Amino acid sequence: MRYAASERLRHPARVVAFGFATAIAIGTALLSLPLATETGHRTGLVDALFTATSAVCVTGLVTVDTGGHWSTFGEVVILALIQAGGLGIMTLATLITVLVAGRLGLRSRLLAQAETKLLGLSGIRRVVRNIVLFSLLSEAVVAAVLTVRFAVGYDQSWGRAAYQGVFHAISAFNNAGFSLHSDNLMRYVGDPWVCLTVAAAVIVGGLGFPVVFELARSWRRPAMWSVVTRITLGLTIALLVLGTVVFTAVEFANPRTLGALEVSDRVLAGFFHSVMTRTAGFNSIDIAALHPESLFATDLLMFIGGGSAGTAGGIKVTTFGLLAFVLWSEVRGEPAVNVGRRRVPETNHRQALAIVLLGIGAVAASTFLLLALTRHSLDSVLFEAISAFATVGLSTGITFDLPPAAELLLVGLMFLGRIGPLTVASALALRRRTRRFELPEERTIVG
Amino acid sequence: MRYAASERLRHPARVVAFGFATAIAIGTALLSLPLATETGHRTGLVDALFTATSAVCVTGLVTVDTGGHWSTFGEVVILALIQAGGLGIMTLATLITVLVAGRLGLRSRLLAQAETKLLGLSGIRRVVRNIVLFSLLSEAVVAAVLTVRFAVGYDQSWGRAAYQGVFHAISAFNNAGFSLHSDNLMRYVGDPWVCLTVAAAVIVGGLGFPVVFELARSWRRPAMWSVVTRITLGLTIALLVLGTVVFTAVEFANPRTLGALEVSDRVLAGFFHSVMTRTAGFNSIDIAALHPESLFATDLLMFIGGGSAGTAGGIKVTTFGLLAFVLWSEVRGEPAVNVGRRRVPETNHRQALAIVLLGIGAVAASTFLLLALTRHSLDSVLFEAISAFATVGLSTGITFDLPPAAELLLVGLMFLGRIGPLTVASALALRRRTRRFELPEERTIVG
Ligand SMILES: [K+]
Ligand SMILES: [K+]
Repeated sequence: MRYAASERLRHPARVVAFGFATAIAIGTALLSLPLATETGHRTGLVDALFTATSAVCVTGLVTVDTGGHWSTFGEVVILALIQAGGLGIMTLATLITVLVAGRLGLRSRLLAQAETKLLGLSGIRRVVRNIVLFSLLSEAVVAAVLTVRFAVGYDQSWGRAAYQGVFHAISAFNNAGFSLHSDNLMRYVGDPWVCLTVAAAVIVGGLGFPVVFELARSWRRPAMWSVVTRITLGLTIALLVLGTVVFTAVEFANPRTLGALEVSDRVLAGFFHSVMTRTAGFNSIDIAALHPESLFATDLLMFIGGGSAGTAGGIKVTTFGLLAFVLWSEVRGEPAVNVGRRRVPETNHRQALAIVLLGIGAVAASTFLLLALTRHSLDSVLFEAISAFATVGLSTGITFDLPPAAELLLVGLMFLGRIGPLTVASALALRRRTRRFELPEERTIVG
Repeated sequence: MRYAASERLRHPARVVAFGFATAIAIGTALLSLPLATETGHRTGLVDALFTATSAVCVTGLVTVDTGGHWSTFGEVVILALIQAGGLGIMTLATLITVLVAGRLGLRSRLLAQAETKLLGLSGIRRVVRNIVLFSLLSEAVVAAVLTVRFAVGYDQSWGRAAYQGVFHAISAFNNAGFSLHSDNLMRYVGDPWVCLTVAAAVIVGGLGFPVVFELARSWRRPAMWSVVTRITLGLTIALLVLGTVVFTAVEFANPRTLGALEVSDRVLAGFFHSVMTRTAGFNSIDIAALHPESLFATDLLMFIGGGSAGTAGGIKVTTFGLLAFVLWSEVRGEPAVNVGRRRVPETNHRQALAIVLLGIGAVAASTFLLLALTRHSLDSVLFEAISAFATVGLSTGITFDLPPAAELLLVGLMFLGRIGPLTVASALALRRRTRRFELPEERTIVG
């Protein structure tokens, strides 16, 4: 029994993959019930599987209109899957971080504790409780604000407003991007109450638990912050500002997106889109109407994604930031990679490299296959592939008329995008082999 | 004097950049002469600069039709620039490899000599002589075959055939992709004499001098081959086969490309296109008529490019191969990255990582700007940006009607693509700083 448990701990990535696959299977079964649809007709297996995967992986891509197709039962199933997926990834990613640290020897373990300010194996229960409390509390606050706004500002009944508020709060905090409206959040494009509340929920959920926990403990002492927190905060702010400036500037005069709005609303919508690329996936403007350069900039931001061990997807800002530091050190000719006053070890570089290469490989292969399977252009197809891999959920609209083979490809890509980076970052590190001897060294030429 | 020389050797990347910039400046001046055009009218400065840069960087992108716009004088200038650029990059890259090895301490230097089978500083003259002899001999053989074919198979006068043969031989061996025909090599699509001869020249020139030299010395003893030669040969063959299969299969029934040809010619044309993506840039089929998935596959192959220290561009198969080995080691949980029976040092990984990140960054930024500057779709623009960065020269046809700002952007991208990877791979290694103390280590979370 003890042996079996320790065996499982040795391959936590399998636990994560198994857990997510199980949740998707249950979700598919429930969404296949006639009860789950508005019309009472059974949903096709591929669409049910697609929706369940999209919900559990908190992606938000949909092949059927969420509010129109599913019954209230179906919507609650989707909401439960989102909550399970979001809590699941946050808890497992945080725990795996602790576990990995625990197996790296005492010195590293202590350092890792200093990093994330988390406890070792003995504190698992406390970690899980903290994450659940943090999630539910955040969602409750967001739901309350939205409910009031929907009831007061849009003359909805309090019951209806509460249902909409809770749904969009959970969808936002878990970076899922599912909406009950067929136009997603486009009707709220000029409403700062809704947009800024949703944006705040997305940002907090996407920072990742280790960073939020460290900020809660020592937000007054930035000098004590770990490498993770420094990179995550710095890059989150930088990318949000950059995205806001780029989208607002490029789309400013586009009559089909920002051009139709008041000037102040254009900035709000530019900021909202910038937040949603990382990787929540709500939209308050029509994605299909964006200029190609905005679509491409969105591609890049979606691929980078949000913080580690949170509800965001993508390769994560930590991976991106570490690679940027490695590049900077190489250009400067520095022998080591230092962030703040800390040296980041070589094994960490290789993990980051592996994650970004796997991400590029998965997106490139999927893009090629989607181009072959459909008649859409690269603009839309690359956008769709990155949106699925980075669990974003934005789309130019091609999701609705994909052939089943392409839908299944996106199902696989969403699953890989959700558990892949975590797997590479952690589980592989656990089975680091030791060689009995080292081979003689030989430099190769590159470039 | 001695000091100045050693200062220059300390920054060989500056020598390379300065040399290429000088050649481009001279070429621009010559191509701006009225004498250089068919009509006797002066060519605009941006077009002259673009053509000179494209020739020196052996790219092959053109904003004016080479055979139609330029006089024989202009064509000879272009040919001289191609030859200077090709010989320049091959010589300087090979020498820098030796120089870098020379500064790494005795042990590494000896290993590096074993790698490339080249001599140290004392043998510079011999290395240069060998490269020039190898280039001229290869070009002479290719020119002879093409001349006979043009004269006998196409009823050209021997003088005309020889001129065409020499031009296309030099353009092929140096992976330049310039052609005197307005349809590039499309008229020869079913001619194996022309296509296979050009393909052979492109492959040999693109392998890189160190690999060719090692093969010439020890082709009978594969067990003795260096890491560079193993990776270059293995990946060259694998990517050529993969490209041939993909292009032939995808375009087989496309009436605007392979579909119009005899079945055996379809395979020939698929193979030819596969070779030309790495990174020669001739085309025997209409690039604009390719299916989007073929364009995208071409993007990937162009970005990877050919061998190091040869006339090919891109990040190089050595960089790509090393990163693949790093990824494989990480997935397997191996503590070291081994190729064959040799361990590749960590500094090498970082160089490869830096090259690929700079490449992706340059292509992504240029793609965004080209999308903003023009009305073309991502399919064409990404293709154009990668073609410029990887000094390929294939185009869907948008080069002819770009605004001047976009032309200048491509000029910069061609220059960066030609000298950037070499610079990162070598010059930066020379100014590796030593820190007096190491900072305390801290792992970060990624993924
Ligand atoms: K999402
Ligand atoms: K070329």
